[in-house]
Amino acid sequence: MFDYQLLRALEAVIANRGFERAAQKLFITQSAVSRRIRQLEQQIGEPVLVRSQPPVATPAGSRLLTHLQQVIQLEAALGMQSGDEDAEKNILAVRMAVNADSLATWLPRALTLPEQKFSFDFLVEDQSVSLKRMKQGEVMVCICSSDETVNGGKSVYLGALRYRAVASPGFLSAHGITETADLFRAPCLVFDHNDRTQHDFMREYADDEPEYIHWCPSSEGFRQAMLAGMGYGMLPDLQIEDAINTGELVDLFPGKYMDIHLYWHYWQSESPQLKALREHVVTSAQSYLQ
Amino acid sequence: MFDYQLLRALEAVIANRGFERAAQKLFITQSAVSRRIRQLEQQIGEPVLVRSQPPVATPAGSRLLTHLQQVIQLEAALGMQSGDEDAEKNILAVRMAVNADSLATWLPRALTLPEQKFSFDFLVEDQSVSLKRMKQGEVMVCICSSDETVNGGKSVYLGALRYRAVASPGFLSAHGITETADLFRAPCLVFDHNDRTQHDFMREYADDEPEYIHWCPSSEGFRQAMLAGMGYGMLPDLQIEDAINTGELVDLFPGKYMDIHLYWHYWQSESPQLKALREHVVTSAQSYLQ
Repeated sequence: MFDYQLLRALEAVIANRGFERAAQKLFITQSAVSRRIRQLEQQIGEPVLVRSQPPVATPAGSRLLTHLQQVIQLEAALGMQSGDEDAEKNILAVRMAVNADSLATWLPRALTLPEQKFSFDFLVEDQSVSLKRMKQGEVMVCICSSDETVNGGKSVYLGALRYRAVASPGFLSAHGITETADLFRAPCLVFDHNDRTQHDFMREYADDEPEYIHWCPSSEGFRQAMLAGMGYGMLPDLQIEDAINTGELVDLFPGKYMDIHLYWHYWQSESPQLKALREHVVTSAQSYLQ
Repeated sequence: MFDYQLLRALEAVIANRGFERAAQKLFITQSAVSRRIRQLEQQIGEPVLVRSQPPVATPAGSRLLTHLQQVIQLEAALGMQSGDEDAEKNILAVRMAVNADSLATWLPRALTLPEQKFSFDFLVEDQSVSLKRMKQGEVMVCICSSDETVNGGKSVYLGALRYRAVASPGFLSAHGITETADLFRAPCLVFDHNDRTQHDFMREYADDEPEYIHWCPSSEGFRQAMLAGMGYGMLPDLQIEDAINTGELVDLFPGKYMDIHLYWHYWQSESPQLKALREHVVTSAQSYLQ
């Protein structure tokens, strides 16, 4: 049987992106963390970590991490004291990878489940990375736009975030924008280099892609930049309804939108607590998503 | 004289955290990027990159990147066509490291300078990382809470973001919180593992540190989690004034606050365009910051 202290050291190094912070999190010294990792590697006979900055789990390390998450969930399902400090307080730690816009809009309201105490650890990740974190067993839950399940995992549909192309009246007049083609002379706001929302939408409805770009990797920063007239771009309905009503933002393509479908990914060995949370979120998401 | 194509390849690999995305950004193949990096290394006789994931600049690489930023600024100061596509359109690309709360609150409004066209590339970084990015020459501007200047750089004071400890009335009643000591039984919201704001404030005004924590690395997600009653924590005045007035949030320690002082870091070889931007931001920040 594994010494789970060793697996938890591995998990801490990956989750905290380094040995030093893993040591802080575990309240042990950095050399104790290194020792546990080496011991684990001697036991299984191969490396579990690539010592890069940040450290990356090897395929063997990833399998161990997935296994660890499943054991943690099984322990939680038992509902008994496991000697864990948090478990003694009946607080279930839930590490969850989420897309930035969900965390900035509907998710916190949908997560409130009064009967159970959770300690959430959100990782804000791009689509491409969050499922990888699930696959590597670094998170218990992943909210992303892929319905492709990972090995040992399941997914359930939550609904869609609906994005519209908007800009402030100040932006439109400052750049003399009177027709669609004028937009391409003016700056477009894009979340980051993985964000294709603006490019795909403009390609579909305006036959070209934006070139003059402000990169703004912050959900609320994006909205504030829009309100300040820095650029045009796509925002979820949940972030713009008020501003459209007050006239602070203008819908550039009325009736046109882009839906980003969202899925809740979880492990088959889900604990009853997480099952209750999932069912609660699936239901309450209906109030916020399409 | 350097072949600046090679330095720009190095810059693209660091800024885009990899060869593949650097290639996409430069519209060349990945092998062309590798070739340019190798050529640069042969020229200077030592490695410029550690080939980790993501790649990291060596000390020699960092010196080259700082130099590159300075040349770019000097070119911008010339105000002449340099053959660069963006420069031909008179758009000055400004890569800026900022703290998350500034980007989510006052900064976009303070950046609007109608006379000059900028293309902003924001990097949302923790205090500890953003000055390092400045030091490594990866950014032209850095907004952070350190006044310590980097080699070849200067800094100017912008003002302070004022944080108060708040929670929703729903949170207070759900956890039966009637006095300060009760807070420690209830979840505290913390931005990430580098965020000491909550711990320092509670240590000072309530003689203890929070232990039951939700980690929420998103400015707006943090505010939404607060409004949804997930936890208590510290928010900038700029993000809570409305909610305090409507009663959606309650000030837990009236009259007590924590000021985070902010500085604008820039290079001594600043271009006139960036100087105009800096002066504009320093002035307009006064409307938002303490």
